[in-house]
Amino acid sequence: MGAVAEPSMRDGDGPRRVVIEGVRPEIDGGRFPIKRVVGEKVVVEADVLADGYDALSCVLLYRKEGALKWLEVPMEPLASDRWRGEFIVTELGRYCYTLQAWADPFQSWQRDLKKRVEAEQEVSVELSVGAELVLEASSRAPGDVRKRLQSTATALGGRGNMASKLRLALDEELARLVSRCSDRRSAATYHRELTVVVDRERTRFSTWYEMFPHSCAPKPGRHGTFKDCEERLSYVAAMGFDVLYLPPIHPVGRTHRKGKNNSPTAGPQDPGSPWAIGSKEGGHKAVNPLLGTLADFRRLVEKAREHSIEIALDIALNCSPDHPYVKEHPTWFRWRPDGTVQYAENPPKKYEDTYPFNFETEDWPELWEELRSIVLFWIEQGVRIFRVDNPHTKPFAFWKWLIDEVKRDHPDVIFLSEAFTRPKIMHHLARLGFSQSYTYFAWRNTKAELTQYFTKLTHTDVREYFRPHLWPNTPDILTEYLQSGGRPAFMTRLVLAATLGASYGIYGPAFELCENRPREPESEEYLDSEKYEIKQWDIDRPDSLKDLIARVNRIRRENPALQGDWCLSFHHVDNEQLICYSKRTEDCENIIVVVVNLDPQNTQSGWVELDLEALGLDPHQPYELHDLLSDACYLWQGVCNYVELNPQVLPAHVFRLRRRVGTE
Amino acid sequence: MGAVAEPSMRDGDGPRRVVIEGVRPEIDGGRFPIKRVVGEKVVVEADVLADGYDALSCVLLYRKEGALKWLEVPMEPLASDRWRGEFIVTELGRYCYTLQAWADPFQSWQRDLKKRVEAEQEVSVELSVGAELVLEASSRAPGDVRKRLQSTATALGGRGNMASKLRLALDEELARLVSRCSDRRSAATYHRELTVVVDRERTRFSTWYEMFPHSCAPKPGRHGTFKDCEERLSYVAAMGFDVLYLPPIHPVGRTHRKGKNNSPTAGPQDPGSPWAIGSKEGGHKAVNPLLGTLADFRRLVEKAREHSIEIALDIALNCSPDHPYVKEHPTWFRWRPDGTVQYAENPPKKYEDTYPFNFETEDWPELWEELRSIVLFWIEQGVRIFRVDNPHTKPFAFWKWLIDEVKRDHPDVIFLSEAFTRPKIMHHLARLGFSQSYTYFAWRNTKAELTQYFTKLTHTDVREYFRPHLWPNTPDILTEYLQSGGRPAFMTRLVLAATLGASYGIYGPAFELCENRPREPESEEYLDSEKYEIKQWDIDRPDSLKDLIARVNRIRRENPALQGDWCLSFHHVDNEQLICYSKRTEDCENIIVVVVNLDPQNTQSGWVELDLEALGLDPHQPYELHDLLSDACYLWQGVCNYVELNPQVLPAHVFRLRRRVGTE
Repeated sequence: MGAVAEPSMRDGDGPRRVVIEGVRPEIDGGRFPIKRVVGEKVVVEADVLADGYDALSCVLLYRKEGALKWLEVPMEPLASDRWRGEFIVTELGRYCYTLQAWADPFQSWQRDLKKRVEAEQEVSVELSVGAELVLEASSRAPGDVRKRLQSTATALGGRGNMASKLRLALDEELARLVSRCSDRRSAATYHRELTVVVDRERTRFSTWYEMFPHSCAPKPGRHGTFKDCEERLSYVAAMGFDVLYLPPIHPVGRTHRKGKNNSPTAGPQDPGSPWAIGSKEGGHKAVNPLLGTLADFRRLVEKAREHSIEIALDIALNCSPDHPYVKEHPTWFRWRPDGTVQYAENPPKKYEDTYPFNFETEDWPELWEELRSIVLFWIEQGVRIFRVDNPHTKPFAFWKWLIDEVKRDHPDVIFLSEAFTRPKIMHHLARLGFSQSYTYFAWRNTKAELTQYFTKLTHTDVREYFRPHLWPNTPDILTEYLQSGGRPAFMTRLVLAATLGASYGIYGPAFELCENRPREPESEEYLDSEKYEIKQWDIDRPDSLKDLIARVNRIRRENPALQGDWCLSFHHVDNEQLICYSKRTEDCENIIVVVVNLDPQNTQSGWVELDLEALGLDPHQPYELHDLLSDACYLWQGVCNYVELNPQVLPAHVFRLRRRVGTE
Repeated sequence: MGAVAEPSMRDGDGPRRVVIEGVRPEIDGGRFPIKRVVGEKVVVEADVLADGYDALSCVLLYRKEGALKWLEVPMEPLASDRWRGEFIVTELGRYCYTLQAWADPFQSWQRDLKKRVEAEQEVSVELSVGAELVLEASSRAPGDVRKRLQSTATALGGRGNMASKLRLALDEELARLVSRCSDRRSAATYHRELTVVVDRERTRFSTWYEMFPHSCAPKPGRHGTFKDCEERLSYVAAMGFDVLYLPPIHPVGRTHRKGKNNSPTAGPQDPGSPWAIGSKEGGHKAVNPLLGTLADFRRLVEKAREHSIEIALDIALNCSPDHPYVKEHPTWFRWRPDGTVQYAENPPKKYEDTYPFNFETEDWPELWEELRSIVLFWIEQGVRIFRVDNPHTKPFAFWKWLIDEVKRDHPDVIFLSEAFTRPKIMHHLARLGFSQSYTYFAWRNTKAELTQYFTKLTHTDVREYFRPHLWPNTPDILTEYLQSGGRPAFMTRLVLAATLGASYGIYGPAFELCENRPREPESEEYLDSEKYEIKQWDIDRPDSLKDLIARVNRIRRENPALQGDWCLSFHHVDNEQLICYSKRTEDCENIIVVVVNLDPQNTQSGWVELDLEALGLDPHQPYELHDLLSDACYLWQGVCNYVELNPQVLPAHVFRLRRRVGTE
């Protein structure tokens, strides 16, 4: 690996003979970047074609965006004109990569000479041809190599002993030296420069806890504060979360404020939905005075950091009717013929407590600037993670601009896209820059659904740009599975989320307390939803899942196999209610095998069929499975082994596989 | 459909809300054109996405290359954000296509109004909103429509009866009128303009006969002439061929001329390989004096045309050592250190009777120009079809340039690529411009091989640019299947080539006379190959396949289903030696079902399972199959029916399917 000159696209040297195409990864002809985190590999493959029979050489070129020099690594030929190479991204920001390939006359000559010698042909003219090639290469070689190549050329073209000349001519070290001095004037450079966005590790591997600050007060009925949140930090940290996500913390509007259970009229004590942002106390850059001051918030960020927790904020780009923007920037909203502002709606439903921005306003440049300033403001307060509310209802171009703008100066910022909409829209948002994306996980319950969905997310090109974030529940989503399955269902969905997804999160304390009463049948809304009222959670309830959660999150931290999404494979079980999958590190040093009972009502049993070869196991040797959840150990042998899971006790095994019995 | 203004890519009007992507057909991000023939459809699909819930409109734009105005056709939404539209190419040359889409506020308004009315909401403000939208649209409408829209706007916003206002508002005709006047200032235009190369019909559907002129003399031993070829035309025409392809017709070199069976020394009467082009009598623009004069050649072209046959010539870009270029343009060749010119070779094999051009010469622009002038010279003599010898040993860039240059002024010219090499190279040559391509057909013998290969060629993106040309034999290829299978094998391969491929050819009279003696075991070369000697073929031999060939080619002419490649589907037969497939026209008016016995030794029988639904057949009604080869009729019913084929008699059925018994 070394620095080389800028690949030249000049055509003045004559037409290129080599063609590079079918490059992967490459998203939509290079229009969108691929994504990696610091320390990850970029493995690049391409078809490299040329006319005729010449041997080819190919290199992968890459550089940090803005760097003058390309670095290069050789690519290796695979079967059928396919080549592969790889590099590691080591810094936050953006990298570029492309390829260069050329016909290599010396390699061709050496290959053909071997065949001629084997056929016992007269080769003296051929040796002169080789001498010319070596001499020509020497003119491009650094000093010491130059002399060596010159003397080799003289020997090849001279009158010496044929056997020793052939030994010299067919020397592999000579091929390596000449290759390094290849004439690249007519090398072909791939016509696209492809981009990698490099994020920090938490973008791939993160464990989120969502919590309403207004419910954090220790005393019933009182509005929680940032100080109360500080008190809650050790509880969150003990469960092993590393991101604490707070719904909007801004002043809440009064006009059309929603009451309990989304009632159109609020009582005097009702806090209002935190997403109805803005009041006379301020808008998106202010904090709700009931929560405390901006200084209190900064202190919470500090305290969280001491617990190795990052605070994530919500970017919800809409306003309550009382938001200062409505008066200060009337052109940012859509006005109706009756002189009122157009509220949010999904006809025939009306959401009169929020006004969407009119992104089609003629003043859009001013609006965009202001919205960016909101994000920059919270970055100044120490926030680096943003969960973006409903990005699919704001223009794609706005998000691309905003994310590019922010990440240019702050490449460590993470944007999570909360778009629950049609798949192509979700994928497009991910392609244009969101670092992580909510998924359909909450509604994928059967073995077939989970297998199909996660195979698509982890084994197609989608994985190059879409980083799945798995939530078994959210304040808006109480699934039918959780409603009907009770505590075992919560355990099942916890293990699935935490082991299928390198990033997952729960909305607590509703989750660990197995809160599952719907507002009405068929609804995914909670009864007495925390969105509209202050809740008093008994986090010390003995049936809380907090210890199980802590254990699951410790297993995630201790097992690198669970910290990535790409290494997932599913294994057959002869019972549709049991799902089995494994994850492993690339070197197979850490292998986790998970078996989950998807039936929250009944004990299920069946025979698991592991793909032993893929897991690097000897089919004739027993192997040990250590259940990291129950701490039990099992000795298995061969492909098929029996499992039985009682959902009332523990609906899952999370095994660490030990290849050699008795050692680890 | 009508003319519209150039789609604007200006960003000055504000950011585009709509995104167009996943366009098909599109080859490598639009770098390569797709191919059609005159009269064919281009069906375009795309994902069209926008933020929010607005209704969208999308149109397909297309124009002949160089035309100022785009034509447009509306696209229709399919499932999952996918849209589809189509246009027909009517002229030779190149077309461009792209897409335009926009959010359509009136459509959204009408859709939402319906929901509000159904929910019995008060909608008077909504009607005012609609009135504004209609009024705004009227400003973009042509005179008569403008007035109508203005009065509608007045009525909607007025004080009239609510029921009649709603009837007016929800009118579909109103939606259509307003839609036609959409505000497209912020429409998104797809960022790529894609290209279609439009060829003449013979590029898709052609029937070739390859014949060595030097063997056409009626008397043994005499070198054939163009005049002898004229005499042979009625024979070729009677078999139903429409292209007569002649190996190179130029003066043949003397130096290192090959003798019989590729012997390194030629006898005085040996004609030499026609591919060793050039002697003191001239090069690529001259004709071999033994064949006649240029005037004789032009006369042959004329006479062939009278038989509805086109003459195809061979473009073989290499020279005999005696070619005038060698002396006149020494820099166009590669010189060895011993002062000789580098001959062609594939070490350890040497082909000393031919010199390849050195395409890496510094004089490449001069070389390219000269090679182009060869093609233009033969175009002037009336030739419009060229079979290109070994294009994969000359630079890709050269072919792209040459074909683009020639077709710019002569869009009716057809280039057939004779590249038997690795698949990606063959596909790349097709992508960069070759009109038709030789295939691996000759070596695909089993049902599995044929099914897999032709499914790939006809049902993947490959079909957009690669037009397969099927040859059961060539002067270089006498397959093991033909060697061992004898006459039944020739019949089998004939029917397969002629019905699997809309374009196919045979090398005759070797083919119809079932010539199958190899030069030596394991070789695909013919014994006493016509490439190196004058042959005397007895074309009237009673066992000739000429009548079968004539019948097969008539079936091809009379059945449009066999004139295209895309409509192919395979059907199951419970015998691996029997293959069954069907081809049909898009309207299902012409349906051909072919069953072939792949075993040239034994009678084979089995049950064919037709996909009745795909063929538009009623499973409860009998249907008639008319075997166009034997003229027999069969009455079938249901999915499974019995077939039995004796290869000694006829190894295939070529059925025309008649849906209603007793009528056609």
